[in-house]
Amino acid sequence: MKNNSSSLGKVYLVGAGPGAVDLITVRGAKLLAKADIVFHDALVDSEILSLCPQAEHVAVGKRCGKLSCAQHFINKRLVDAAQKHQVIVRLKGGDPMLFGRADEEITALKQAGIELEVVPGITAALAGAASLQQSLTLRGVSRSVAFITLAQGTENTNQSKADESQPGNNQTINPIINPITNPNADTLVYYMGRKDAAQIARQLIQQNQPHQATTPVHILEAVSTPKERLWSSTLQELADGKADDWFDSSSPALIMIGAALSHSSENLKSSNPEIHNSLQDCQILANSRRHA
Amino acid sequence: MKNNSSSLGKVYLVGAGPGAVDLITVRGAKLLAKADIVFHDALVDSEILSLCPQAEHVAVGKRCGKLSCAQHFINKRLVDAAQKHQVIVRLKGGDPMLFGRADEEITALKQAGIELEVVPGITAALAGAASLQQSLTLRGVSRSVAFITLAQGTENTNQSKADESQPGNNQTINPIINPITNPNADTLVYYMGRKDAAQIARQLIQQNQPHQATTPVHILEAVSTPKERLWSSTLQELADGKADDWFDSSSPALIMIGAALSHSSENLKSSNPEIHNSLQDCQILANSRRHA
Repeated sequence: MKNNSSSLGKVYLVGAGPGAVDLITVRGAKLLAKADIVFHDALVDSEILSLCPQAEHVAVGKRCGKLSCAQHFINKRLVDAAQKHQVIVRLKGGDPMLFGRADEEITALKQAGIELEVVPGITAALAGAASLQQSLTLRGVSRSVAFITLAQGTENTNQSKADESQPGNNQTINPIINPITNPNADTLVYYMGRKDAAQIARQLIQQNQPHQATTPVHILEAVSTPKERLWSSTLQELADGKADDWFDSSSPALIMIGAALSHSSENLKSSNPEIHNSLQDCQILANSRRHA
Repeated sequence: MKNNSSSLGKVYLVGAGPGAVDLITVRGAKLLAKADIVFHDALVDSEILSLCPQAEHVAVGKRCGKLSCAQHFINKRLVDAAQKHQVIVRLKGGDPMLFGRADEEITALKQAGIELEVVPGITAALAGAASLQQSLTLRGVSRSVAFITLAQGTENTNQSKADESQPGNNQTINPIINPITNPNADTLVYYMGRKDAAQIARQLIQQNQPHQATTPVHILEAVSTPKERLWSSTLQELADGKADDWFDSSSPALIMIGAALSHSSENLKSSNPEIHNSLQDCQILANSRRHA
């Protein structure tokens, strides 16, 4: 490996944002437009690659839980690319520093003496709050929001099997969800929590602080894309498994929980879950609600 | 007020991002470029207004804790603007739905029958993690991150006086920081916590879970701007008031706490706080560390 870092390329870890192509940052878009090569992962929508037609596109798709050699292989490819190219973009869904496992790539690049820069991206929770037109924090109601993943992240977990399990299966206590490690914040946003949603809700109700059976819940799938879908109800309905059949396992889902998300009270007066597609603005929200 | 919403303009609540002009989203930049009028608050850097030279610029600067009539006045101006203009942008620092008090403006606009859309922005914590090149979550270390403000948000709190208080003053127990309401997450990022930093650190050490005296702390001021500054140490040093004299009260500061932020262990082997200016990339991080 060359030690002269001036002859090496620079690697940019760029957050692609939640899905919509125009929710990438201006800085990220400019870097894509001048990239020699772009390594993108599975959560990045192919439309965003239209921002870098000049670049070589390399899919390094990897979902959490697959074999660790996948990550080692990505690290090696990034280091190798810096020997051959000047502008290397590693494009990650959402924000690179939040559930992005960027640390492993950063460590590998630093060890190889390769210059790098991280460009933040809109994380799904913020795009979800924008779609809902609901603040995650609210004066007098919520001073904190926690973003959580229950993904184990160990390489030997059988995630793909678990993803295929039937809704009823999560009655079994899953050892990866320890109630003690549930974060405590006024608003909670779970990433990648689909298969454990009912169990999370039961635990939160049992903990009784600050979330209760009547606390509003919104589940958003495919945030910011044309496939965006919303399920809105309460923590009790979620605990009762009412959302289990609604999930579409092909899309990432966010579970948003908290009193701040009450969606101006009249919207939650019914205990029936409410389902919406393609939230775009408040007119659509107000006028085209469809009941399940 | 006109009831025919088709003749009314549309209001876009746009996140300006953390400060750097190119960390706004592409969508946000395009909306600024076609805006008729832009209402921007105090935390928005003036440089970003260069993206909307054609628009009328209206400063509605308001820091948390000022009189509530300021918010009512902003609400009214937004509603009025929709009678006269077609594209109205309300530009907020960071993300509108996180500590942005957007809910009050959204409610006022909905009540007036005005169409609105929220465009998310890069929140300071994610820009801070990008500058540090440190993931907020880390496999096997951190599965959750909480963003917290201690700002009271009631209108009669004497925030401006408190901001001017001397560092030593926060030995007094401040009633707004109730230990019980401290969120619990693997990584914590406090917004607007400058004057309470030492007290927060003492409480976290006392709580003993999951944060300890040796837990890494990074304080970032003016994230993503040329004035960016970093103070790095441990929770114990923060509790001992070692950061108190370092803060520059004219810049917003983020306090980032958690084992995930260990900055590859060798960087924290000294207990001396480390101070850096203008983090740009890992080369600078590695080569130009200056000790306090």
